Amino acid sequence: MGTAEYERGSKRLAAVTGSAGQKVVDGLRNISPDFGRYIVEFAYGEIHSRPGLTMQQRQLITIAALTALGNAQPQLKIHIAAAIHTGVKRDEIIEAIIQMAVYAGFPATLNGLSAAQEVFTASGL
Amino acid sequence: MGTAEYERGSKRLAAVTGSAGQKVVDGLRNISPDFGRYIVEFAYGEIHSRPGLTMQQRQLITIAALTALGNAQPQLKIHIAAAIHTGVKRDEIIEAIIQMAVYAGFPATLNGLSAAQEVFTASGL
Amino acid sequence: MGTAEYERGSKRLAAVTGSAGQKVVDGLRNISPDFGRYIVEFAYGEIHSRPGLTMQQRQLITIAALTALGNAQPQLKIHIAAAIHTGVKRDEIIEAIIQMAVYAGFPATLNGLSAAQEVFTASGL
Amino acid sequence: MGTAEYERGSKRLAAVTGSAGQKVVDGLRNISPDFGRYIVEFAYGEIHSRPGLTMQQRQLITIAALTALGNAQPQLKIHIAAAIHTGVKRDEIIEAIIQMAVYAGFPATLNGLSAAQEVFTASGL
Amino acid sequence: MGTAEYERGSKRLAAVTGSAGQKVVDGLRNISPDFGRYIVEFAYGEIHSRPGLTMQQRQLITIAALTALGNAQPQLKIHIAAAIHTGVKRDEIIEAIIQMAVYAGFPATLNGLSAAQEVFTASGL
Amino acid sequence: MGTAEYERGSKRLAAVTGSAGQKVVDGLRNISPDFGRYIVEFAYGEIHSRPGLTMQQRQLITIAALTALGNAQPQLKIHIAAAIHTGVKRDEIIEAIIQMAVYAGFPATLNGLSAAQEVFTASGL
Repeated sequence: MGTAEYERGSKRLAAVTGSAGQKVVDGLRNISPDFGRYIVEFAYGEIHSRPGLTMQQRQLITIAALTALGNAQPQLKIHIAAAIHTGVKRDEIIEAIIQMAVYAGFPATLNGLSAAQEVFTASGL
Repeated sequence: MGTAEYERGSKRLAAVTGSAGQKVVDGLRNISPDFGRYIVEFAYGEIHSRPGLTMQQRQLITIAALTALGNAQPQLKIHIAAAIHTGVKRDEIIEAIIQMAVYAGFPATLNGLSAAQEVFTASGL
Repeated sequence: MGTAEYERGSKRLAAVTGSAGQKVVDGLRNISPDFGRYIVEFAYGEIHSRPGLTMQQRQLITIAALTALGNAQPQLKIHIAAAIHTGVKRDEIIEAIIQMAVYAGFPATLNGLSAAQEVFTASGL
Repeated sequence: MGTAEYERGSKRLAAVTGSAGQKVVDGLRNISPDFGRYIVEFAYGEIHSRPGLTMQQRQLITIAALTALGNAQPQLKIHIAAAIHTGVKRDEIIEAIIQMAVYAGFPATLNGLSAAQEVFTASGL
Repeated sequence: MGTAEYERGSKRLAAVTGSAGQKVVDGLRNISPDFGRYIVEFAYGEIHSRPGLTMQQRQLITIAALTALGNAQPQLKIHIAAAIHTGVKRDEIIEAIIQMAVYAGFPATLNGLSAAQEVFTASGL
Repeated sequence: MGTAEYERGSKRLAAVTGSAGQKVVDGLRNISPDFGRYIVEFAYGEIHSRPGLTMQQRQLITIAALTALGNAQPQLKIHIAAAIHTGVKRDEIIEAIIQMAVYAGFPATLNGLSAAQEVFTASGL
């Protein structure tokens, strides 16, 4: 992966997450700058930049998946904030998390809603 | 839960899955008809009938979540077929599954794509 | 779901969890009162109210499952406290968690025992 | 681990699973007889032989946990058969699996019920 | 990602998996050739090509992780075969799978050993 | 399991984890000393004492598996510290965690790197 993917990824990361994604990348400086580069180049420069789904759709499915998995709360919060940043409505986020009760159980939804409430409060929603 | 939820759920189940969902419910006849009723009344009469997300959005997040969890292939196939039935595009389904590579790993995506291919072939897509 | 399920669920929630379950429901007031209602009506008014297993048996299998899944510590603690509240013995809870070492690994049991110890200490056990 | 644990484990394995558990142990002959020994000595000679829970309770929590995890269908079937063998009632098994819908989602319960139906049919239940 | 990563990834894929990995990539032709490209460029051209661990070490940790996750049997088999192909010893593979009993439970190990036995038999080991 | 396994396990526990493992065992004193004994006798006296893989290899596959599972951060940190204690290099640990991005997703790797950074800092690495 090279410069083109990195530039495309950087733009996409900012478009999706504001400054939050770049902070994650910067936080990897001492432990693995390469992994920060993969986030930019692969996760955002390739996957999130693909056509076929909007940024908003991509955030919604990510929120659903991370709620269902239930083992990545820091990332779930970042993607809830990113969803808000890209214009996904508060209610759409809540609905995606509620639906996971059917597919991953009530505790998954409870912990997802708790993450959402924390992010909403921090965002003044 | 009573008659109103059951009727609303039955209609929603048919709208979302065609006849496939009802076949699952019927298949529970000998083991637990009550659980079939919960699928109709709670999963479809309550959760899938909520406003805030379209049927198509609900299918897409379900496909993402089941791909990420990776332990419910029969249900993943049913929801891929249901997504097609509700008008989700082939490419949107594929994109949702591909995005899971970032959030749940490449094997999750590979097994999700394999489920999709099977359903697409059966649907003539 | 309607009044009958809600009333049955409320009673069951109190019988199983004391006041702890209602606190969870109340805590959802600002984010999703509907999901609080589903906890009462579906989880407790339907599932936990079913015949065939005692309240104590239902708590024990819930503790086992949440220990095995390992991604829902807040709910695990609530159900350990609820198990005590319904009369499940301290040793039965510990045994259920220990058995999960065979089915979900030693870390699952270690984190389950840690949750149990916290709840036991808070309960003066 | 030595002779005493092995003998106690062998008896417990037979008491819990009939001949099915020993078949699993025998099936490991070519790949890892040691792991077969650990099943006998540790899983059954230690854990399943502990006081505090009955054999029936141990089967029920195992069924719940394997249903919730959803990634060990062969073992789930063996433990459903073992539950029947130890005298757990058909309905108790079904109830334990249904309750997992609340804690691990509807697909987990559907796949658990499907395993149960297969075992019940093979057992003439 | 571009030509350099693709070429490096292709070589690495062949070095690690023989022809098996390329078959997976080819099998994606009709559903998502792009995802096949990501396997080559990112998974093998980037991650598997990194210094710091040998090919053999990378196969062993992949086998351990897929055994522990327990929801990706097709990929587990491919990586067991790849481990053999890169010179990992039969016993090292078995040991890695056995150790997962402690960290992910006995069913994970049983299903991992079953995958290994199938691959060993097919490889004449 | 008896004296021989306990002694072998105690030595192995110390060799692998320094004093950290014994602290975990001691911490179980009030909740389940038996489970502490199983850690010593079975996990270390049996599994970790097996030939076929070095202590260093066993730590690396454990780190990979716990990173992939993503639901056992306290144990992941202990095993990262143990890996350092047994002579696994800082870079090998980081590489094992990075590789999990392919097999379990980027959030698993991010949370694994975060655990590693915490342990490295505490160890002055």
